[in-house]
Amino acid sequence: MTNKLWNKGHIFDKEIEKFTVGEDYLLDYKLIKYDLYGSIAHTMMLLKINILNKTEYAKLKKGLKNILQLDKKKKFKIALEDEDVHTAVENFLVGKIGIAGKKIHTGRSRNDQVSLDLKLYTKDALLEIETAVLNLCEEMIAFAGKYENTPMPGYTHMQKAMPSSIGLWMCSFIESLLDDLELVKVAYEQNDQNPLGSAAGYGTSIELDREFTTELLGFKKVQNNVLYVQNSRGKIELSVLSALNQVMQTIGKLSTDLLLFTMSEFDYFSLPEELCTGSSIMPQKKNCDCLELLKAKSAMIFGYLMQVNSIISNLPSGYSRNFQLIKKPLFEGIEMALESIDITALVVKNLVVYEDKLASSCTNEIFAAEKAYEFVKKGIPFREAYKNVAEKIGKMEDSDVNKTILSMKTIGNTGNLGLNKLAEKIKKEKKLVLYQDNCFKKKIKNLLK
Amino acid sequence: MTNKLWNKGHIFDKEIEKFTVGEDYLLDYKLIKYDLYGSIAHTMMLLKINILNKTEYAKLKKGLKNILQLDKKKKFKIALEDEDVHTAVENFLVGKIGIAGKKIHTGRSRNDQVSLDLKLYTKDALLEIETAVLNLCEEMIAFAGKYENTPMPGYTHMQKAMPSSIGLWMCSFIESLLDDLELVKVAYEQNDQNPLGSAAGYGTSIELDREFTTELLGFKKVQNNVLYVQNSRGKIELSVLSALNQVMQTIGKLSTDLLLFTMSEFDYFSLPEELCTGSSIMPQKKNCDCLELLKAKSAMIFGYLMQVNSIISNLPSGYSRNFQLIKKPLFEGIEMALESIDITALVVKNLVVYEDKLASSCTNEIFAAEKAYEFVKKGIPFREAYKNVAEKIGKMEDSDVNKTILSMKTIGNTGNLGLNKLAEKIKKEKKLVLYQDNCFKKKIKNLLK
Amino acid sequence: MTNKLWNKGHIFDKEIEKFTVGEDYLLDYKLIKYDLYGSIAHTMMLLKINILNKTEYAKLKKGLKNILQLDKKKKFKIALEDEDVHTAVENFLVGKIGIAGKKIHTGRSRNDQVSLDLKLYTKDALLEIETAVLNLCEEMIAFAGKYENTPMPGYTHMQKAMPSSIGLWMCSFIESLLDDLELVKVAYEQNDQNPLGSAAGYGTSIELDREFTTELLGFKKVQNNVLYVQNSRGKIELSVLSALNQVMQTIGKLSTDLLLFTMSEFDYFSLPEELCTGSSIMPQKKNCDCLELLKAKSAMIFGYLMQVNSIISNLPSGYSRNFQLIKKPLFEGIEMALESIDITALVVKNLVVYEDKLASSCTNEIFAAEKAYEFVKKGIPFREAYKNVAEKIGKMEDSDVNKTILSMKTIGNTGNLGLNKLAEKIKKEKKLVLYQDNCFKKKIKNLLK
Amino acid sequence: MTNKLWNKGHIFDKEIEKFTVGEDYLLDYKLIKYDLYGSIAHTMMLLKINILNKTEYAKLKKGLKNILQLDKKKKFKIALEDEDVHTAVENFLVGKIGIAGKKIHTGRSRNDQVSLDLKLYTKDALLEIETAVLNLCEEMIAFAGKYENTPMPGYTHMQKAMPSSIGLWMCSFIESLLDDLELVKVAYEQNDQNPLGSAAGYGTSIELDREFTTELLGFKKVQNNVLYVQNSRGKIELSVLSALNQVMQTIGKLSTDLLLFTMSEFDYFSLPEELCTGSSIMPQKKNCDCLELLKAKSAMIFGYLMQVNSIISNLPSGYSRNFQLIKKPLFEGIEMALESIDITALVVKNLVVYEDKLASSCTNEIFAAEKAYEFVKKGIPFREAYKNVAEKIGKMEDSDVNKTILSMKTIGNTGNLGLNKLAEKIKKEKKLVLYQDNCFKKKIKNLLK
Repeated sequence: MTNKLWNKGHIFDKEIEKFTVGEDYLLDYKLIKYDLYGSIAHTMMLLKINILNKTEYAKLKKGLKNILQLDKKKKFKIALEDEDVHTAVENFLVGKIGIAGKKIHTGRSRNDQVSLDLKLYTKDALLEIETAVLNLCEEMIAFAGKYENTPMPGYTHMQKAMPSSIGLWMCSFIESLLDDLELVKVAYEQNDQNPLGSAAGYGTSIELDREFTTELLGFKKVQNNVLYVQNSRGKIELSVLSALNQVMQTIGKLSTDLLLFTMSEFDYFSLPEELCTGSSIMPQKKNCDCLELLKAKSAMIFGYLMQVNSIISNLPSGYSRNFQLIKKPLFEGIEMALESIDITALVVKNLVVYEDKLASSCTNEIFAAEKAYEFVKKGIPFREAYKNVAEKIGKMEDSDVNKTILSMKTIGNTGNLGLNKLAEKIKKEKKLVLYQDNCFKKKIKNLLK
Repeated sequence: MTNKLWNKGHIFDKEIEKFTVGEDYLLDYKLIKYDLYGSIAHTMMLLKINILNKTEYAKLKKGLKNILQLDKKKKFKIALEDEDVHTAVENFLVGKIGIAGKKIHTGRSRNDQVSLDLKLYTKDALLEIETAVLNLCEEMIAFAGKYENTPMPGYTHMQKAMPSSIGLWMCSFIESLLDDLELVKVAYEQNDQNPLGSAAGYGTSIELDREFTTELLGFKKVQNNVLYVQNSRGKIELSVLSALNQVMQTIGKLSTDLLLFTMSEFDYFSLPEELCTGSSIMPQKKNCDCLELLKAKSAMIFGYLMQVNSIISNLPSGYSRNFQLIKKPLFEGIEMALESIDITALVVKNLVVYEDKLASSCTNEIFAAEKAYEFVKKGIPFREAYKNVAEKIGKMEDSDVNKTILSMKTIGNTGNLGLNKLAEKIKKEKKLVLYQDNCFKKKIKNLLK
Repeated sequence: MTNKLWNKGHIFDKEIEKFTVGEDYLLDYKLIKYDLYGSIAHTMMLLKINILNKTEYAKLKKGLKNILQLDKKKKFKIALEDEDVHTAVENFLVGKIGIAGKKIHTGRSRNDQVSLDLKLYTKDALLEIETAVLNLCEEMIAFAGKYENTPMPGYTHMQKAMPSSIGLWMCSFIESLLDDLELVKVAYEQNDQNPLGSAAGYGTSIELDREFTTELLGFKKVQNNVLYVQNSRGKIELSVLSALNQVMQTIGKLSTDLLLFTMSEFDYFSLPEELCTGSSIMPQKKNCDCLELLKAKSAMIFGYLMQVNSIISNLPSGYSRNFQLIKKPLFEGIEMALESIDITALVVKNLVVYEDKLASSCTNEIFAAEKAYEFVKKGIPFREAYKNVAEKIGKMEDSDVNKTILSMKTIGNTGNLGLNKLAEKIKKEKKLVLYQDNCFKKKIKNLLK
Repeated sequence: MTNKLWNKGHIFDKEIEKFTVGEDYLLDYKLIKYDLYGSIAHTMMLLKINILNKTEYAKLKKGLKNILQLDKKKKFKIALEDEDVHTAVENFLVGKIGIAGKKIHTGRSRNDQVSLDLKLYTKDALLEIETAVLNLCEEMIAFAGKYENTPMPGYTHMQKAMPSSIGLWMCSFIESLLDDLELVKVAYEQNDQNPLGSAAGYGTSIELDREFTTELLGFKKVQNNVLYVQNSRGKIELSVLSALNQVMQTIGKLSTDLLLFTMSEFDYFSLPEELCTGSSIMPQKKNCDCLELLKAKSAMIFGYLMQVNSIISNLPSGYSRNFQLIKKPLFEGIEMALESIDITALVVKNLVVYEDKLASSCTNEIFAAEKAYEFVKKGIPFREAYKNVAEKIGKMEDSDVNKTILSMKTIGNTGNLGLNKLAEKIKKEKKLVLYQDNCFKKKIKNLLK
């Protein structure tokens, strides 16, 4: 006897089985509930088009809900020999309810099942990501509000350049995240298409009601072309990981700034002891390991993106087993991003600010451009004003940094950051995510009735 | 004497000059006109806020339009010693119109200038890309319409799997491109923000009217936070290259299919001789080099994406000279994508189809799943039907492939492709791009009045 | 109470602990035995330089060997709170043997410990990789010998080009692997340096005898500069993964060829049923999933390489916590490569050859270049001979493919493959690996006496 | 009339010509001389095996030397219509010397020609790279010698950690470069194989004397298997770029350190004004742009490596046009690395050291581990000593940093750097490179006699 759906009686080489299944039977634990949601919807549709009768339908639904209960208690097992969650579920059903179980695969293939599971998993995950990004924005805006007009040197080329403020600095990350969020939202849109009914990429002659399952599962639309369902494998994951990579780039930049500004040579900020680690050999050390790891994780994410891109590169049309390896970088990328966003929020929330040090670091020379502008306001051409000031560097009068940063009133500058608008934008986005999340949850709830 | 805006009299090492300028003075030829548009808008704004008087303004505008004329005739030169287009323009103006030229840099930095130039360049380029993608879609839909119901074996795992059609196959690429287009559109949105007025990333105390230049240059909005203007360097380019990478992935898949299906072992399609090359040693060869290069170019694009990502990774806030190296992968990526999309349209337009060979390749065994469904329609559970058919492979009756593909009526399958809807979608998208393009052109025209 | 070596009494945030430890405490199970080897050598050295007395030494050695026994039975546990194997070991020793346990960290840091553990792990792994590569070569040479003169069309541009042989084709992979092996050997050399004694990258004032531990652990030399020990983190892993990537490129090419040549349109080769999988929906399918996964895994390896490269890019000198994330791509890359090499050997061993199909596919036109050479031998300039033949394509007489491939006697061509030389080379390399492996094992055995 | 070697009379689409030729006809200027060396060797061999008579040989050699002269004066042109250097040369010869020109392509293909050209180009380039790396090492060792015992804080986790020295710091880069050099040398070895005589990857029936051309061109050996010659395309380039990437990683780390340590907050080092640039808006700025660009270029190199890897991934055996796109990343990677190594040497040579600032930054707390070791020397277990010291941080007596760094006598630490050994190693390596370079030059000289 065999667990394989496709087995026709021959012996399957054990080494090849281990190699082809790989970590799939373990990774698929993350997909169990989504696989069951999909199977319930598929079953309801098979009833509607009369492939199943009511008794069969009832048995199947009961069986599927049974597995859902088991999974909640972490008691549903996928064996290596099962290969994947889809097979484990079908085998369980056949074992429990007999003949009706053998009907559940009608009109579908594991190819469209895994595609469906991944889309539902990703939907859930992206809603979580969006929520986490917006929570991070909220921590940031609270911080920016608190230190809106605290002076801080602005750097270019890793050298002090101009007078600036914590408000400007922190808000730059908020605006970055809000732009990144747009990319997450597009990935969400691309993912929000129902693949079910495409079977192995070439449909079936059974007239499946794809709009019905789309409605049941809460997708925005049917993913139309049945071959494109397979050909989009990896591409949608690429959109997701590209968006996460951008979020991580933003986080990586903040971490880079903080690793610099918490050095004793700067001492602009610190992390409280409970967020720091020490050294096994140097008693005095207090290290911001979490910031270093945020940077390293941003490097990892791009690697996942790259893996997905390479896996799908130059594959011909139609399902390829190569797709199987996409799961792991997708799962790990999503989890790593989510965890990193949350840790960043924790960091921002706990960041200690040394206002005196920041102010005293706004040394004389960084007002040079402003000095040149004073000449400009008197009618001297900028390039000449620049040269005048250049000759007097080191001999300039001191400037009042607090006054300077307040006086910079151009849109988006220290004296005109637009904090309120940002706060409103964040609020609006949160509302939207919450709405989408509720819709999805309601659909699932109805499905399980 | 020196060309450098920042020179204060010392000698600049020649090797370092060559190293730091690199290819920049050559790459910047692509930016001249955009730099001039930006300078005209900036000049108009300086007039509005009374930094320039009318005479100075008139002189500057004349000088800038003069350079625009020179550039059209390819006569405006950027010397290595100039470092970049911005310096070349300021030097030209100072030489031609004297003191007014020295005022043009008021309230801006080369940092926001290059950011502006790149955004205008990218805007233009993305409109071209979108148009090219939609033209390719049109070639594809004409092709799909012509061969909508031509049978073709569907493959999975690089093995014949199911009966299918050219219509289904070609439409899968159209749907892929339309999804890719959404990513191009988001990149367009992210790029459509005016950086001007952010100066070196920390603004100036001069109250620049950023909304006025935004209006003049036709941007959708001000890129608000002046530091984020710098911090977004590379990130927007990443969005652009990610979108192009997705387009190239779609093209790469089509090329992979075609390289396979034009092999003499398949003989499903061929390219006409005028699109093929030969061998210097084998007289019989007729090679589809253009398809091979499309695949290779899709590999190159991801490399550009990766370069941009690595360049910006873990940089602290504010301008870094590292950004300079982003230009080349951006330019090369955009040009390579544009050229590849056009060549793909040429390939689709000229593709020769061998309908007989395609039909005769729909051999008996690929109807096995359909045979199983015939049992299912008689009430036999799918898994049993599957096993029955599996035992009879090789002994099945022949099927009528034309009938089969027409009978597959599920949404998105061979008998129900939705060609009309696709055609409408393409039309709608084209209208939108044309509208955006016209708006942009009108703004530029007004600017040059 | 706390498990941390560095704790000075404050509370450590639970989320940060989870984030910073990450998967490290799990990954470190792979390092336990190497950590113990290192600790034993370190302990012997501390005795030699009189930091430990004989009693302390005996206790420590007993404790360490105790852990080694536990680990063999999978009973030594590393808790998340321990952070890593080094801490778990020290805590165990302190618990078991008291004060002597508190001395074991003298003169070292977890920074040089993890570096040591990874070097020993990698040494072992590379010897396994080299052995596996050479086993694969042996399978290939057996195959190449058996089918040395079996005709096979040679392809260029994915089109039939010239008459060729299985011997030539298979030997091309052997020569590729032998070149790849040179890269593995260099990585082995780079890895074969003892980091112990470098402490946290800045040594200690205690005069450690680094040459003694180098001798004990069987390293080729001391990794001299104590800072370079830290700065080489990731770089040696890059060498390893670059070499593995090259091996996987060779395997990827073989898999690509086989996926093509096992298509029914070619039917040159097949895999026996026990190495193939089927479809859950199409009863007729017999898929070479293992070949598809070999290709996909070759894509994954480059991703790991890329992750390591990105993680270490632009880090300043000295240990960074970023390094921690290098472990996972290193471990996964090595395991994936090893498994893939073994599966490839299994594939080659079981490959079914259809000699008739291969011979009949050497169709007339692929002899065109040879026809031209017949003219050349009569004194006609090649370019004219080429043109003559080009005009007669389709009208050429049939050629004897068996005769043709035997007649190609130039070095490295079908009639002169040099199989014996290859076989000798493989034998010599195997001897070398075996020798190195024995030396290493002997050192470890002595250590545990 | 047509320039193409393979043209049989039909018209070639202009767009496809432009697309397929791409930048090749421009890039090939770098290959002209190598193509001519190869053609001369090939011609000599054709004379030896009696395909050419002495008159034809003399004419061809004269023609080829003629082109070499033209190329020296930059007067030999490759037209887009020629496609590549090989065709341009053959067309020139046929035009100049008639019928003998039509014989030169006997027994070879553009496939093995380009492979040969690239191998000769790469050989030359790697000798240059090795020389440049060793020159950089010499600058570094001079610097390390001068400041061998200058104190400098050692950092871990971007925090001051331990007392250290400039000698240790700078020598860490030398040891890194010497390890990198081993990778360059392996790439050199892999490249040092003669591909000539493999024709299009399947040889010819003409018995070419491959050992003779190997001898003439100074290769170490014949690249044996004629198919492997094609299959190694990209793989050898990968080895080259991997080695260069490692060199650039070392340079990137030095640049990262210097960008940090030249910040005004550190002020450990500076670059003289003639190596720095300024800002167009901020009169006071003095930026180390060259260091920023070194980092960015190290990011670019990995992109080139990645492009080559992606281009060749999953190509079937035999020549593919995809290979054409390998040239550009190879050329650009080599040139970028060479230039970066030279600039780094210039930076090291000109680096200004602020010894007082370095010494005064060795603040009290970084001696904590050493304080613990003082207890250890008195017999207190390390872990207890660590805890004792931890409690007294801030209250420790001052230490003498100069004494401390001299007292660290363990191999590879500040008091025992092994500068002499390093110097000897560099000298030995330089001798070897010089020897190889002379051998190669001699071979070429003989060829041109």
